[in-house]
Amino acid sequence: MLEERVFTAVGTSNIALIKYWGKRNEQLILPTNSSISLTLDENLSSRTSVIFSERLDRDSFYLNGKVQDINDGELKEKFQIINRLRTMAGVRDNILVVSENNFPTAAGLASSAAGMSTLVFAASNALGLNLTQRDLSIVVRMGSGSACRSIAGGFVRWNRGELDDGSDSYAEQIFNESHWPEVTDVIAVVSEGKKRISSRSGMRQTMQTSALYQSRPQFAERMARELAEAIGRRDFNALAEIAIRDSNNMHATMLDTYPPISYLNDTSREIMNAVHEINESAGEALAAYTFDAGPNAHVITTDRHIASVRERLSEIDGVSRLIESKAGRGPRILGESESLIDVGSMLPKRSSGDE
Amino acid sequence: MLEERVFTAVGTSNIALIKYWGKRNEQLILPTNSSISLTLDENLSSRTSVIFSERLDRDSFYLNGKVQDINDGELKEKFQIINRLRTMAGVRDNILVVSENNFPTAAGLASSAAGMSTLVFAASNALGLNLTQRDLSIVVRMGSGSACRSIAGGFVRWNRGELDDGSDSYAEQIFNESHWPEVTDVIAVVSEGKKRISSRSGMRQTMQTSALYQSRPQFAERMARELAEAIGRRDFNALAEIAIRDSNNMHATMLDTYPPISYLNDTSREIMNAVHEINESAGEALAAYTFDAGPNAHVITTDRHIASVRERLSEIDGVSRLIESKAGRGPRILGESESLIDVGSMLPKRSSGDE
Repeated sequence: MLEERVFTAVGTSNIALIKYWGKRNEQLILPTNSSISLTLDENLSSRTSVIFSERLDRDSFYLNGKVQDINDGELKEKFQIINRLRTMAGVRDNILVVSENNFPTAAGLASSAAGMSTLVFAASNALGLNLTQRDLSIVVRMGSGSACRSIAGGFVRWNRGELDDGSDSYAEQIFNESHWPEVTDVIAVVSEGKKRISSRSGMRQTMQTSALYQSRPQFAERMARELAEAIGRRDFNALAEIAIRDSNNMHATMLDTYPPISYLNDTSREIMNAVHEINESAGEALAAYTFDAGPNAHVITTDRHIASVRERLSEIDGVSRLIESKAGRGPRILGESESLIDVGSMLPKRSSGDE
Repeated sequence: MLEERVFTAVGTSNIALIKYWGKRNEQLILPTNSSISLTLDENLSSRTSVIFSERLDRDSFYLNGKVQDINDGELKEKFQIINRLRTMAGVRDNILVVSENNFPTAAGLASSAAGMSTLVFAASNALGLNLTQRDLSIVVRMGSGSACRSIAGGFVRWNRGELDDGSDSYAEQIFNESHWPEVTDVIAVVSEGKKRISSRSGMRQTMQTSALYQSRPQFAERMARELAEAIGRRDFNALAEIAIRDSNNMHATMLDTYPPISYLNDTSREIMNAVHEINESAGEALAAYTFDAGPNAHVITTDRHIASVRERLSEIDGVSRLIESKAGRGPRILGESESLIDVGSMLPKRSSGDE
């Protein structure tokens, strides 16, 4: 029997510099290659309160002030992670989850990494599970692959692993958030027209239909090794070229998918050109770009060049706003005053949704 | 000593359904894979008159009414083909070339295949060289790779070849223009912003920097075999999927180039989506798209669906006009009345340039 107590955590998103696109095991979410990301700071974060209680007659989940249907589709699948944690803890109580993202409304920035990592972090603490960071990342991974890199701050590598049971496919910090504090992600939010295909089904289609994809895992694995070394010696030129090449490599396999998957638009491509022009005229890399499954650009730069990069990006039509993030420090438990749950009513404290 | 006579020829462009992007020998222009194209009709043609004469004190070339600098860059390189022909014929006379394209002004449609194949066709006839189609294609190939497919009508394959001297890398008709007369190319002319990178340097960069490119030659070779079979049995579903996949495959290797090469824009992508939607809602392929080194779409369809394809394409913002072409019949010599050269003055008959 569990002490009835709210646990509240804050966790953040991450931006992959070596991308994850393709599973070698769909069930366990085991990737075809290692990936490396920068954990973002609390400008792009999720705050999540959880409570397990026998007073709750069912599981429920409020996101940004709205109750979610946890029996529906992808959310249902992701919520299985709670059952996994309950089994690990030998607990059967239902859970109330109240979560709020501070992601700009409708910016199209993926919040699922922040949400999933924070939820697992809060819930595992509430259940009294003393998970190592490694085991925590494995649990998160099974809920949402790329989210597993948000379990630590700084630069994080999600190791591909070799084992069939996935026990060696975990995320670990390779350099903490103080290692290279000059590095900054300037996110150019790009408006987009249509609904995009989900990463989950997109990467499945790529693996099934792209002839070029066969070279990607080996390429990305090599890029991951080289990037870890480049970060180690704080070599921005190397980081920039590797990040750009890996992003384009992934998006190329998407274009080679049948039917093709296209997340980049003309504004994205204009940002790409601008970054190459900035670097060419400087004779060295001042910036790099990387794109996830959408048209928003993450332009990685360093303190000295933030102002000029921002200026150049704001000249581009279709860039609606710029958001800055340094390396974040990973998820952490907040004090009781930060709780989003009213324990008396077992409901969210207030509706502060931003829709 | 040559009889002093004007030879005038007309020749056309071609649209590759299996693309050529990468040379295994830069000097001889030997491709990394076989390619297959549809020779277009005289809606997209070049008319070229040539005369060799000892009265000419130097080589000169008029294109669309304007004298060209044949000592300049890429044109100089391409004009070497004339020296090759002169050597083959044992002739030293200078040449006057007068050429006119009927390509719509500023449509961004590549006219070099039509121009180069027609020039070589006219000049080799003027020199009395009795070249086989195979040898003709080899000469054209050394001037401009993809142009070698314009030496015959219908469906033409440019064989990769295995030999180091390139003697087995030639173009040949695999099905003539009457084999599948329903097939039509509806060209959607898409306005584009900026100057594009030349194919010649673009494909070199792709080969040097794209990790994914290593899978392309084998893929394209397989697609070429499958496409030839599909055309043989007039299987439009197969043609459509193969053409779409091969176009996307090539453009994916361009995106994977460092720095990336991007010829497709948002309008191109909207056309791609429209074609997939048309086919999905019909439950079979009514159309296919293929893109060369630019944003213009070649939408391949059949007689029954031209009207609906045109209607759908004209709804798309950024499509400035539609041009239709059936399979053409390859280059041919025109009568003397069609000559563009005034033999008395050894100058173009009239300036009818369209700029």
